[in-house]
Amino acid sequence: MPTKLVLVVRTDLDMGKGKIAAQVAHAAVAAALGTLSTPGFRTWLREGQPKVVLRVSGEDALRQVCADAEAAGLPVQLIQDAGRTQVAAGTATCCAVGPAAVADVDRVTGALPLL
Amino acid sequence: MPTKLVLVVRTDLDMGKGKIAAQVAHAAVAAALGTLSTPGFRTWLREGQPKVVLRVSGEDALRQVCADAEAAGLPVQLIQDAGRTQVAAGTATCCAVGPAAVADVDRVTGALPLL
Repeated sequence: MPTKLVLVVRTDLDMGKGKIAAQVAHAAVAAALGTLSTPGFRTWLREGQPKVVLRVSGEDALRQVCADAEAAGLPVQLIQDAGRTQVAAGTATCCAVGPAAVADVDRVTGALPLL
Repeated sequence: MPTKLVLVVRTDLDMGKGKIAAQVAHAAVAAALGTLSTPGFRTWLREGQPKVVLRVSGEDALRQVCADAEAAGLPVQLIQDAGRTQVAAGTATCCAVGPAAVADVDRVTGALPLL
């Protein structure tokens, strides 16, 4: 069963590429730690941790992705930045959906463009 | 004891920001999974997973960071891309050093610029 982890990033915050990478890494680590004991995680790890980074235009769209993923029973992690650099503390910057079956993740994030 | 995870990315591969984020996320997840049972990891998690993304100009510099970190006894993860997009399979794209004590990590990566 092919799996993937999708990371969804806001593009309206003017984050630099290093900042984006750090936020996405935070989401990916949270997603991994949050699913460690699940069969989906072990499959994902065995498949080489496939990851896709997608984008949304703002906070409402990001929160909608999280709500849709939760409603679908998928693992979700919303990252809120500590605010030490570039964005205000508590700003929702990105989220992780999965790792889970590609078909299930695509039902939630399939229409989003690549970052 | 303040800790951090440093992610070091090559800038000579012309990777887009989504590609960079995915590679850095891969390194961060590998770093976390590789140190799960260590006190350094637990401290790092408790501190909110501090991460810094730095850059090197090419493969030699990236491999030197890995060698220096290994010589210092720090956790190191070198990421070689599966090559499905943007770069050739097996290309070393980035590495993770830590999570470990800030002072120990800085001894290896302290001179590198932010991405």
